[in-house]
Amino acid sequence: MLLRMSTLLLKTLREEPADAEVPSHRLLLRAGFIRRAAPGGYTWLPLGKIVLDRVIAVVREEMVAIGGQEVAFPALLPREPYDLTNRWTEYGDDIFTLQDRRGGDYLLAPTHEEMFTLLVQDMTSSYRDFPQLLFQVQTKYRDEARPRAGLLRGREFLMKDAYSFTLTDEGLAAAYAAVRASYQRIFDRLGLAHTIVAAMSGAMGGSASEEFLATSDVGEDTFVGCSSCEYAANTEAVVTPVPSITPVEAGPIAVHDTPSTPTIASLVELANDRALEGRTDWTAADTLKNVVVTVHQPGGKDELLVIGVPGDREVDLKRLDAALAPATATLFDDFASRPDLVKGYIGPQGITARYLADPRVVAGTAWLTGANEPGKHATNVVAGRDFTPDGTIEAAEVRAGDPCPACADGTLTIRRGIEIGHVFQLGRKYTDTFKVDVLGVDGKTVRPTMGSYGIGVSRAVATIAEQHHDERGLLWPDEVAPADVHVIAAGKAGQVEAALELGERLVAAGLRVLVDDRPQLSAGVKFTDAELIGVARSVVVGRRLAEGIVEFRDRRTGERSDVPLADVPRVITDALG
Amino acid sequence: MLLRMSTLLLKTLREEPADAEVPSHRLLLRAGFIRRAAPGGYTWLPLGKIVLDRVIAVVREEMVAIGGQEVAFPALLPREPYDLTNRWTEYGDDIFTLQDRRGGDYLLAPTHEEMFTLLVQDMTSSYRDFPQLLFQVQTKYRDEARPRAGLLRGREFLMKDAYSFTLTDEGLAAAYAAVRASYQRIFDRLGLAHTIVAAMSGAMGGSASEEFLATSDVGEDTFVGCSSCEYAANTEAVVTPVPSITPVEAGPIAVHDTPSTPTIASLVELANDRALEGRTDWTAADTLKNVVVTVHQPGGKDELLVIGVPGDREVDLKRLDAALAPATATLFDDFASRPDLVKGYIGPQGITARYLADPRVVAGTAWLTGANEPGKHATNVVAGRDFTPDGTIEAAEVRAGDPCPACADGTLTIRRGIEIGHVFQLGRKYTDTFKVDVLGVDGKTVRPTMGSYGIGVSRAVATIAEQHHDERGLLWPDEVAPADVHVIAAGKAGQVEAALELGERLVAAGLRVLVDDRPQLSAGVKFTDAELIGVARSVVVGRRLAEGIVEFRDRRTGERSDVPLADVPRVITDALG
Repeated sequence: MLLRMSTLLLKTLREEPADAEVPSHRLLLRAGFIRRAAPGGYTWLPLGKIVLDRVIAVVREEMVAIGGQEVAFPALLPREPYDLTNRWTEYGDDIFTLQDRRGGDYLLAPTHEEMFTLLVQDMTSSYRDFPQLLFQVQTKYRDEARPRAGLLRGREFLMKDAYSFTLTDEGLAAAYAAVRASYQRIFDRLGLAHTIVAAMSGAMGGSASEEFLATSDVGEDTFVGCSSCEYAANTEAVVTPVPSITPVEAGPIAVHDTPSTPTIASLVELANDRALEGRTDWTAADTLKNVVVTVHQPGGKDELLVIGVPGDREVDLKRLDAALAPATATLFDDFASRPDLVKGYIGPQGITARYLADPRVVAGTAWLTGANEPGKHATNVVAGRDFTPDGTIEAAEVRAGDPCPACADGTLTIRRGIEIGHVFQLGRKYTDTFKVDVLGVDGKTVRPTMGSYGIGVSRAVATIAEQHHDERGLLWPDEVAPADVHVIAAGKAGQVEAALELGERLVAAGLRVLVDDRPQLSAGVKFTDAELIGVARSVVVGRRLAEGIVEFRDRRTGERSDVPLADVPRVITDALG
Repeated sequence: MLLRMSTLLLKTLREEPADAEVPSHRLLLRAGFIRRAAPGGYTWLPLGKIVLDRVIAVVREEMVAIGGQEVAFPALLPREPYDLTNRWTEYGDDIFTLQDRRGGDYLLAPTHEEMFTLLVQDMTSSYRDFPQLLFQVQTKYRDEARPRAGLLRGREFLMKDAYSFTLTDEGLAAAYAAVRASYQRIFDRLGLAHTIVAAMSGAMGGSASEEFLATSDVGEDTFVGCSSCEYAANTEAVVTPVPSITPVEAGPIAVHDTPSTPTIASLVELANDRALEGRTDWTAADTLKNVVVTVHQPGGKDELLVIGVPGDREVDLKRLDAALAPATATLFDDFASRPDLVKGYIGPQGITARYLADPRVVAGTAWLTGANEPGKHATNVVAGRDFTPDGTIEAAEVRAGDPCPACADGTLTIRRGIEIGHVFQLGRKYTDTFKVDVLGVDGKTVRPTMGSYGIGVSRAVATIAEQHHDERGLLWPDEVAPADVHVIAAGKAGQVEAALELGERLVAAGLRVLVDDRPQLSAGVKFTDAELIGVARSVVVGRRLAEGIVEFRDRRTGERSDVPLADVPRVITDALG
């Protein structure tokens, strides 16, 4: 492959593009890899398409290596299968739906569990047909409320989705392990530094679930690690360790006038000033904050919910949504309609709404909380004595330094990441819905169990750009770079011809070559563009061409060396390793 | 590549599938290449995906060979650009439209002229950036009223669409010629026998336009050839030669009672029985039939139109639609609302509706036609004297034996074909709409001119199947076959192991191999499946394995020969040529 920049559809941008808030988005635009075509929809330009195809090739190769078989489903699908699993309703506004000319309901599929299940039902009949590992590389659609960050969160994007079908739980575990290992190889080959974390399974249903998060400051996900063990989890999936408490002898509930305490901080200050219960060591952690939210069930039904969390923590709405999925929650503010809920002074004792508490609110703990009267709070409100929550909920924020749920003495650290892969042990949720039964070894029917595995392919391109750039531009890992070497003609004394000739020789040596043969541009402009585009190795055909000498540059090592023209193919091949 | 049928997601069907009306559809279903997933939407199974990818590879290779650069646009696009060119309205029900969660209008693009034009406007600024030839291989959508014939007319399908941008008409002609030649190479490599015919440009706009039609009895298009010159055209695009007439001295219009003449045949019989105008040689060609249609303009406006054609020809609704595009027509039947139009007795003399006539209705021709009174017809109705049409229209059927429009003495033959490619010289329709101007060589601005070129990629797979099958199954051309050789283990005395071992050796020789290693099936079933799947060369590892002998079969030549195991790679490689 020889790409000539004199004819390439390429326009690099010197200015920072407006509306591009993250480095990958800015650089992919500036270097001419993508262009915006729609809200959350991007066009791959020639250089970008090459990188995308390289990523696809790696994903495909590794999936085939573990026995994956490639298929391709339509994106436009009828409503019926998604109705049967209730996902038509559960997805709600998050999917694009439409009607055809006959009024039939369709969706642009965000994922294909239903269709793969139906396909396997159609194509298999006996234990001999299993296991199956099927995948596709396909355009997906989600009607994101806030498409952002270019390819990182689009509304039309490329996914590799895979599905395993096995007959036993052990079979599922083995398929899951094989795909998980394959994903590690894929992301390693793509140069993506990542962490595998425990995940919530979200609207997918199912049990075991892990995410591959590429570490990045611009990631939308936060995840925790432990200071002393291997535990890692998406913040949404962190399970709060239940504290072991020494029950105190608490007196009866005492109600106090607490005017002008709109915040937890002002309440704590008042409690210490007045030495409530004889104490002057009140902290926010001694208070119980009760937050009222409206829970939106898929399909439109709303319910009121009060959540109790220790006053030193905020409710994390992402964790709350994850806990409630597929329902979502918003803060409740129509207190006029619920006089039983006294805004700012709610307490769980005698509460008339559904009430879920943080796991730290264990039986025997005594709290300073609202007295359900305007301007009053209560002390000695004891869980299990004065109130019994309807259950617990993981909605409180996770903080660095929190105890590790997996080991005795570790504490949590927090980082940000971009979700690039997700593996689920779905189990029989879908095969149950569609009643998929096949003949078992023993002559009885057996119901296959399912795994679901995804890689964000277009997102991976942006994530690679996020992890591989510097202040001058992109710097692609060799496996996905748009070319193996960038040959730059710097001069007008035959350098362009010599660069093209060298390019052809490099192609003959099996290399993919980008030649900057643009006649009208200065060497400086070409160097700047080369750094923006991000092929690590370049060869400058410049002033010493007459002596048969060109300059080899390796942007990763910083090496610059003069090389005889004849040696260039060997030097590049050596550098690529 | 070694594919093992024991694990392949494959189920061949012995029965003819219901609802599959054409051979390619039946065989692709039966051989396990595709499955229906939605109305007009198909899933590619592993074998089908391989063939599809082979077709894509050929198309891509030939497009790159003529300087094509690959990009990839979203399929989900905002309404605005398509509004500017009026295609949002012109497409009407033929496209899928939807609204996003904010109520914005979107479409699933059936073609991308607008977006490519906007991209070129964004990415270019001077004559130095031209010519450009850009292409994508992309999923397209059309809300077909009647999806049919499997992949031949679907609602979601794969297209290669390409667009050239050049600065001069000569540049456009050169780009057009290059793509046209490239398409000939592509279809030759794909084994598609085809004819290049003159075409209407339809809703695309533009001037020169040709279609590549694969000859096939199940094709939806009909096209003509000439018995003596090179002329070939889609029937829709045939221009009727204007006959040279010797004007006759016609008397004045005479009105006749013609009861019970509901058909042209009964009218002609009556005219001869009564010797109208002293003649007994009346034929249907002497009558002028006037057909009333409603013309539906894009956007909803309806207009009445009367079409006059010689009575020996029907109105061809496809030709009529092509002539009216982007409007469409349906037969008018609400004569109660138009008392001026006397059903069955309409004549063009004094007609109050818009009237277009067949090109054969030249000035000076005299016709037997309706008298605009119930039960009466008129003779001596002379074009140019008694009526003047508002224009001519190509709406009459084309028949075998019609004179060739391109040469003096040829006559037309008619065949059916499947449209597999289309090349257009669009001109400046889109660059005018979007006001694309770039710096010209002379320092003035210049507006690029555009060509548009499409290949139906998924349709090509079905068309290959249509042209390459026999009563036993598919028979793929080597270039696109799912494998180079099909190795069949026929026996249980180590044949499966030997077949797999042979398969590995063939892979090592660079071949793509399908091995039927299914342990539980008879040789007969395997042979039947092999013929259905359609890899031309097979090797049967059977009874003479112990002697080191296997059987080579070539389904195309019918050859069957015993071959020593060691020679198999050479035999296959030789056969592939």
